[in-house]
Amino acid sequence: MIIVMKTDATPEQEKAVIRHIEQMGFKAHVIEGEERNVIGAVGHEKKKMDLMVLTTHAGVEAVIPISKPYKLASRELHRQASVIEIVPGLAIGGDKFVVMAGPCSVESREQIVATARSVKESGAQVLRGGAYKPRTSPYDFQGLAEEGLKLLEIARKDTGLPLITEVMSQRDVERVEASADILQVGARNVQNFALLKELGRVSKPILLKRGLSTTIKEWLMSAEYILSEGNTRVILCERGIRTFETATRNTLDLSAVPVLREQTHLPVVIDPSHGTGVRNYVPAMAMAAVAVGADGLLIEVHPNPEQALSDGAQSLTLEMFAAMMEKIKPLVTLMGKSL
Amino acid sequence: MIIVMKTDATPEQEKAVIRHIEQMGFKAHVIEGEERNVIGAVGHEKKKMDLMVLTTHAGVEAVIPISKPYKLASRELHRQASVIEIVPGLAIGGDKFVVMAGPCSVESREQIVATARSVKESGAQVLRGGAYKPRTSPYDFQGLAEEGLKLLEIARKDTGLPLITEVMSQRDVERVEASADILQVGARNVQNFALLKELGRVSKPILLKRGLSTTIKEWLMSAEYILSEGNTRVILCERGIRTFETATRNTLDLSAVPVLREQTHLPVVIDPSHGTGVRNYVPAMAMAAVAVGADGLLIEVHPNPEQALSDGAQSLTLEMFAAMMEKIKPLVTLMGKSL
Amino acid sequence: MIIVMKTDATPEQEKAVIRHIEQMGFKAHVIEGEERNVIGAVGHEKKKMDLMVLTTHAGVEAVIPISKPYKLASRELHRQASVIEIVPGLAIGGDKFVVMAGPCSVESREQIVATARSVKESGAQVLRGGAYKPRTSPYDFQGLAEEGLKLLEIARKDTGLPLITEVMSQRDVERVEASADILQVGARNVQNFALLKELGRVSKPILLKRGLSTTIKEWLMSAEYILSEGNTRVILCERGIRTFETATRNTLDLSAVPVLREQTHLPVVIDPSHGTGVRNYVPAMAMAAVAVGADGLLIEVHPNPEQALSDGAQSLTLEMFAAMMEKIKPLVTLMGKSL
Amino acid sequence: MIIVMKTDATPEQEKAVIRHIEQMGFKAHVIEGEERNVIGAVGHEKKKMDLMVLTTHAGVEAVIPISKPYKLASRELHRQASVIEIVPGLAIGGDKFVVMAGPCSVESREQIVATARSVKESGAQVLRGGAYKPRTSPYDFQGLAEEGLKLLEIARKDTGLPLITEVMSQRDVERVEASADILQVGARNVQNFALLKELGRVSKPILLKRGLSTTIKEWLMSAEYILSEGNTRVILCERGIRTFETATRNTLDLSAVPVLREQTHLPVVIDPSHGTGVRNYVPAMAMAAVAVGADGLLIEVHPNPEQALSDGAQSLTLEMFAAMMEKIKPLVTLMGKSL
Repeated sequence: MIIVMKTDATPEQEKAVIRHIEQMGFKAHVIEGEERNVIGAVGHEKKKMDLMVLTTHAGVEAVIPISKPYKLASRELHRQASVIEIVPGLAIGGDKFVVMAGPCSVESREQIVATARSVKESGAQVLRGGAYKPRTSPYDFQGLAEEGLKLLEIARKDTGLPLITEVMSQRDVERVEASADILQVGARNVQNFALLKELGRVSKPILLKRGLSTTIKEWLMSAEYILSEGNTRVILCERGIRTFETATRNTLDLSAVPVLREQTHLPVVIDPSHGTGVRNYVPAMAMAAVAVGADGLLIEVHPNPEQALSDGAQSLTLEMFAAMMEKIKPLVTLMGKSL
Repeated sequence: MIIVMKTDATPEQEKAVIRHIEQMGFKAHVIEGEERNVIGAVGHEKKKMDLMVLTTHAGVEAVIPISKPYKLASRELHRQASVIEIVPGLAIGGDKFVVMAGPCSVESREQIVATARSVKESGAQVLRGGAYKPRTSPYDFQGLAEEGLKLLEIARKDTGLPLITEVMSQRDVERVEASADILQVGARNVQNFALLKELGRVSKPILLKRGLSTTIKEWLMSAEYILSEGNTRVILCERGIRTFETATRNTLDLSAVPVLREQTHLPVVIDPSHGTGVRNYVPAMAMAAVAVGADGLLIEVHPNPEQALSDGAQSLTLEMFAAMMEKIKPLVTLMGKSL
Repeated sequence: MIIVMKTDATPEQEKAVIRHIEQMGFKAHVIEGEERNVIGAVGHEKKKMDLMVLTTHAGVEAVIPISKPYKLASRELHRQASVIEIVPGLAIGGDKFVVMAGPCSVESREQIVATARSVKESGAQVLRGGAYKPRTSPYDFQGLAEEGLKLLEIARKDTGLPLITEVMSQRDVERVEASADILQVGARNVQNFALLKELGRVSKPILLKRGLSTTIKEWLMSAEYILSEGNTRVILCERGIRTFETATRNTLDLSAVPVLREQTHLPVVIDPSHGTGVRNYVPAMAMAAVAVGADGLLIEVHPNPEQALSDGAQSLTLEMFAAMMEKIKPLVTLMGKSL
Repeated sequence: MIIVMKTDATPEQEKAVIRHIEQMGFKAHVIEGEERNVIGAVGHEKKKMDLMVLTTHAGVEAVIPISKPYKLASRELHRQASVIEIVPGLAIGGDKFVVMAGPCSVESREQIVATARSVKESGAQVLRGGAYKPRTSPYDFQGLAEEGLKLLEIARKDTGLPLITEVMSQRDVERVEASADILQVGARNVQNFALLKELGRVSKPILLKRGLSTTIKEWLMSAEYILSEGNTRVILCERGIRTFETATRNTLDLSAVPVLREQTHLPVVIDPSHGTGVRNYVPAMAMAAVAVGADGLLIEVHPNPEQALSDGAQSLTLEMFAAMMEKIKPLVTLMGKSL
């Protein structure tokens, strides 16, 4: 921590700050500047955020943190990129590129099985589908719940594709864990810390979406909640942040990928469907996601988007998805990865 | 719903759209423009959002919603501002102005009782204090939990002040309901729909904070989740939104007050402590909150902010709070309200 | 400047950084931490931003500036709030509250004279009116230009009210300076540095609006451009920033007022017309502006907003303005100021 | 335009709105809904924005524009993507991919000539370099001005590379036009309408950067200012928007590329240097820019970034640029384009 004193701070004020630093168990180092002094507080990392209270001292201009508050997610202690096993024979991270595809909501047996067969044929390795749906309005379709999970299991049995599906409620964690191969945390729950802690104790990998206004640092702290409870299999998913621009539903922040590569060892996938909200923009952004170095894609696909019960506007048809996969494959190869 | 056709849409494309509108049970009205046609879809309001899928049609430029998706929260059906009883003898809304004050976290019996006595003396009518704390980092102080609730009850018994405290987890709803007079939903849980539904079934009023990047419309939809389950006592709390500006922790959106006055009958309180994150800015923003027409304030106060376990930087001392209340009182009167 | 080294920086990398710091004429002070070292660079303030290039060194995690880059605008060297004379007998700042009102665009002699008379009667001390209009579209009304300035002069002669009007182009500075009592820089030109430098050399006060996405620090740097050319009469005007919220045209950042009070001696006025974009919200936000401690208001008023050539939606009628002034006057008095 | 009436609007209020619409020369079409009526206003497109004043009518809920206010930039009237000649033998748009590279600021003859030779060798087709620099602080290096232009001309003579350089001031337009092959408008001047109009009358192509908080629609309106004065050679440049995220200097909005492809025929280049502000992130984002379908790149390169007078932190070394170009070339080919 660096404590920046005001230009007119008195020696007494500075002494009071130093005393407080030492009381908290840190050592204080003063650097005397031409305009103002700054004080470095050195000591045990875990307690450093406590020093933020020094901003309340008279004579203090600012308190600036200099170390990262996440540890388990950090690349500093875990240099090698993590390769996370999803199911035996399928891993994400390193030189593997994984495409997860399927409808926003599971709607019927026909819909989910037809989609699963088609996306597998096109090259997807994981089936996505929502059984519990977070909807802005209580009057919108809320998902088929347990019935949806059963339909997903049928589609898995039919195609062999592992399943990813969202869990919204602490009360559903056990039930979803029983059915899914990956549990997804949606953008709106990225700082639902009670849910994150419970997911830190499940036996399946977690895909953690970035929130609409979550900084990369906060997102990694949310991952830390899961990791610190013992579940080491966390996959990050960038899905667009909220900005002033309304031409797209969100602004897909692809620069998060090179930033995360520096900061964390965890794999990162991109969701261009929510990232743009417009299906015509999805293939271009999927290409960009491969080229920027992501580890995979999460794509909404529906056999009949015009009739979808949710997110039809951003869902690819089966044919559009197949065409997109054909464009992506040579690019994955060019990037030195394999699907 | 208004469906805007492209300037080069063909008559066949327009017919397909009309057919789809009628299939969904709406009537279609075409307005022929000089450059392009637009189609109005008329019918049952609740299903209108389903029409968004029309964006997937060839020839469609945009689909524009024109009605508000919330009903119970809306002023259209409930013209009179709601006055919500907190406990017998204390209500919020109308010409009542309510100040809720106390520490971010309950830390000890001495701390909470001393604070309760002092803020009551200064004019606060409700005691705030966190027992369950949402923290960005899993390594930060997470609150005293049940022990914190018991200390709050002691402070209530001592001073007679009703209690507001946050509930973060579905598993704690019953326990918090037993102790608190108002249950608070924090900004990070504003779209934790599973939690909102459960709070729609409790017997106490709910204070629903706006999320960091929640639009006013989405926020009212979250209120609708609680209202539609049967709990009609919802208080809204503006606490700052996330913007590009870093001089303050958040940007307190006071214009939300006149907007909400038009849109909803629910009362609105302002939290300038989280809204600014800097205690020196709190009194000025509290004055502005009264003048803009808010129904109350939520203020962080700590007997010794330098030693606070959380949010010390934005907490007023007991003396600062007393001084602020003295400034606020004549303004509340000028606004035609009473504390 | 504080240079934060990486946790795995080598001693050679640290030496290279220190060498570079010393080459640039600064002294380097190393603080050895448990996880990483940080280096303080001490020396002449003006050159400090040059140290940002140290981010390119291997082993450097971050470079953190600790001093403010503006000097003339800063409160550190100019403790007393500035009181700026607009015309003899009218000043802004300190305990004076100044209301500037009038139409977005000057449209005709009748319109501007009628407005001037009415707003003066209601208590405004300055007449606003646009002759050169910045419009998003080249096809929108661009203002009456020189003819508009002449009409403003007629209104001034009629009422005695001093004039504020916008200058958009370097080529118009001389002409606008000849007519106006205050020259306004619009939000879109806040970082038009060529224009700012020219305005630093005019003999009239400048009202500098904050840009749509300008931080307070950048805004003060823009003020510094004017001040450093010799014009010391700069008035700041908060007019709303761009955020994700669309219920209002912009988000009026009233917390800028207490922040600016700490950072600068320059006076601050609030423009709730552009801040909200909706005339029904203007009176409430004007009240909040007085209560937060602003030095004045800039308000759009039109005798017939339905027929206005620009910004009709956010303009008050003459009657609405008169009513608003009646509400504001006792609040100005309560704040210890005089209109 | 669609005028949405309130649910409780009276027939008299509706009639007043219709009368006003007809007075302005439009036809009104009423659609009677179950909850509320909406009115379509049909007529001459150019005057449509005037209808926004209808928001001031009692009984009106909202006025919603449905047509695009830009015409010359629009794809609706100009279906084919524009291919813009920069100099004889070099064009941008269609299947050409153009890389523009060079230092942020021209600093010396040696610096600019060495850079020009090296980036040409690596495959760049245009040399960038700033002679007039927009700097947040008046105390920062402001560029070599005319001397910088002369140095750029020397580098052009030496290498044959055409030049792109920024113009910040109306007073410099003629001088910059004489030297440069492309005139650049910086992000801070994107709505400096006086400058845009003058650039609409020069004989060279204009590269128009997006502003920090400019929507795509506003950006196209700024392009329209140039186009409507007669200069048809406008190149758009996405360089990152301002968001809440601070891990990168800006958030590079690559989804602007597919959006612009739908909306406009103008070519689009990407500036990942300003887009990220961190040189280590530039190559990954450059790859993504090629894959998303952009027409070119604008890259900051400096022979010695540690000594750069501006933007050293985001400049590639000559070697890093060469390595990046080697990665980009096969991807350009894969995208069906040629460098």
